[in-house]
Amino acid sequence: MIRVYVSTVIDAPLSTVWKIVRDFNGLPSWHPAAGESRIEDGKANNEVGCVRNFALNDGTGNVRESLLALSDVNHEIVYDMLGGPLPFVDYVATMRFEPVTSDDTTFAVWTAEFTAADGDSEHWQKFVADDVFLGGFQALEQAATGK
Amino acid sequence: MIRVYVSTVIDAPLSTVWKIVRDFNGLPSWHPAAGESRIEDGKANNEVGCVRNFALNDGTGNVRESLLALSDVNHEIVYDMLGGPLPFVDYVATMRFEPVTSDDTTFAVWTAEFTAADGDSEHWQKFVADDVFLGGFQALEQAATGK
Amino acid sequence: MIRVYVSTVIDAPLSTVWKIVRDFNGLPSWHPAAGESRIEDGKANNEVGCVRNFALNDGTGNVRESLLALSDVNHEIVYDMLGGPLPFVDYVATMRFEPVTSDDTTFAVWTAEFTAADGDSEHWQKFVADDVFLGGFQALEQAATGK
Amino acid sequence: MIRVYVSTVIDAPLSTVWKIVRDFNGLPSWHPAAGESRIEDGKANNEVGCVRNFALNDGTGNVRESLLALSDVNHEIVYDMLGGPLPFVDYVATMRFEPVTSDDTTFAVWTAEFTAADGDSEHWQKFVADDVFLGGFQALEQAATGK
Repeated sequence: MIRVYVSTVIDAPLSTVWKIVRDFNGLPSWHPAAGESRIEDGKANNEVGCVRNFALNDGTGNVRESLLALSDVNHEIVYDMLGGPLPFVDYVATMRFEPVTSDDTTFAVWTAEFTAADGDSEHWQKFVADDVFLGGFQALEQAATGK
Repeated sequence: MIRVYVSTVIDAPLSTVWKIVRDFNGLPSWHPAAGESRIEDGKANNEVGCVRNFALNDGTGNVRESLLALSDVNHEIVYDMLGGPLPFVDYVATMRFEPVTSDDTTFAVWTAEFTAADGDSEHWQKFVADDVFLGGFQALEQAATGK
Repeated sequence: MIRVYVSTVIDAPLSTVWKIVRDFNGLPSWHPAAGESRIEDGKANNEVGCVRNFALNDGTGNVRESLLALSDVNHEIVYDMLGGPLPFVDYVATMRFEPVTSDDTTFAVWTAEFTAADGDSEHWQKFVADDVFLGGFQALEQAATGK
Repeated sequence: MIRVYVSTVIDAPLSTVWKIVRDFNGLPSWHPAAGESRIEDGKANNEVGCVRNFALNDGTGNVRESLLALSDVNHEIVYDMLGGPLPFVDYVATMRFEPVTSDDTTFAVWTAEFTAADGDSEHWQKFVADDVFLGGFQALEQAATGK
């Protein structure tokens, strides 16, 4: 099983960061890999159990992910991957945010557990850690700070 | 500050119990104190941030509560009270469920933290623990088992 | 990776159960598989980082396990396996206890994650779940109730 | 009840920070308020249940605190205050550390809940947040980085 743990500090207050990321249909507004996104079956964006369906900007196809948990208390989102072009099995990911009170910034953690159907665990571990999660956090900081 | 912690074992599988309680608009289907309920502003039942507005069956008025967190992973619901006839300040409550694998039943926990505006902490601690939470769990077991 | 989750209800108060299990050198007093046990290097029984070294009653050898975490708040013990006759790799286990307030009994959870070096995941998953954990909880109840 | 939540980022790897803080008898090596310290009753430094007894450098007396939980997994320490010159009632505090993987530094959180026997909640809230916790973290960073 592949485990990914990526964390960083985002130079914006938690309230600003959380407002951006808690919209489960909002990936295109901040993540560079995500194109057009919609919630399936007419459900609400933050309804636990809803499915987001978004295009990958590299043109390889659409990813479907289901919202498993959302907490405005712990500032946490849990979701799993239902389908798409990536060879991931049993993929479950969690994003979590905590305030850094000493300078009003935000500690951000993104974790995942999954198996790679093609057996290339090393490649996919690095891909998710660097491209999807760390790259995503860098873009999230830009979205949150307007820089 | 008043703290309440009530736990019990419900004689039904977790999947059955969770299906009943995860509907944030579903109190009337199992809790004896709750009458007619609706979700305000046309939001979905399980949309984090939605507000449920339900009548108390004792006729004292309506309670408004906001969904702060919902997890299909941890089988947990967190909500706070926005208004109603009860003299509760900063009331936040959590329901949590775990499977008892040895006999396929469900461990159930209901906790709350709040202050009583009228200063009668002892009365309200006992009221929430016995009438709202333990009484609620007993009724939930009836709803889950059909007995 | 093998995951084990076993839970049950022990017919004794949490304080009684916890007093028995929190002694990291105390397995022989309640677990039927454990014979003579000692803490290595003259450390204390409940010192985080200490290693217990106990004989298996089936005569196959001694198991060495390290205490990773101990909480008198959450009534939780985390440990990993350093060596012994079992073909377990990266074995980390957690015991956790919560009070059942409705009848003053104890909800008990025992979980583990590990890999089987011999590849027989199905066998070892069942062995840990049934023989080590559920059998252990049944013996723990006997130790706690004196029956 | 008074609640304190202070967090910051310490410019040193988690392993370095944790090695310093996990010694429950080690406050004098990093915290500016703590003078000579000993563990009572001949117990080990990291034995859950042990009591540390340390002098305050302002000369007002000795503080006694009990170790309630220690986790090498979550990098977390929980303790309560048994006695001393501060007018704190039911004081329980938690320190927790997580790695910031993007630059190999450490996210640090220190929280407490307590009541002030003299009723001056505002003063003591600020005192614990600024002097004890944030000041402590700044000194911890100096100890961890050698600057």
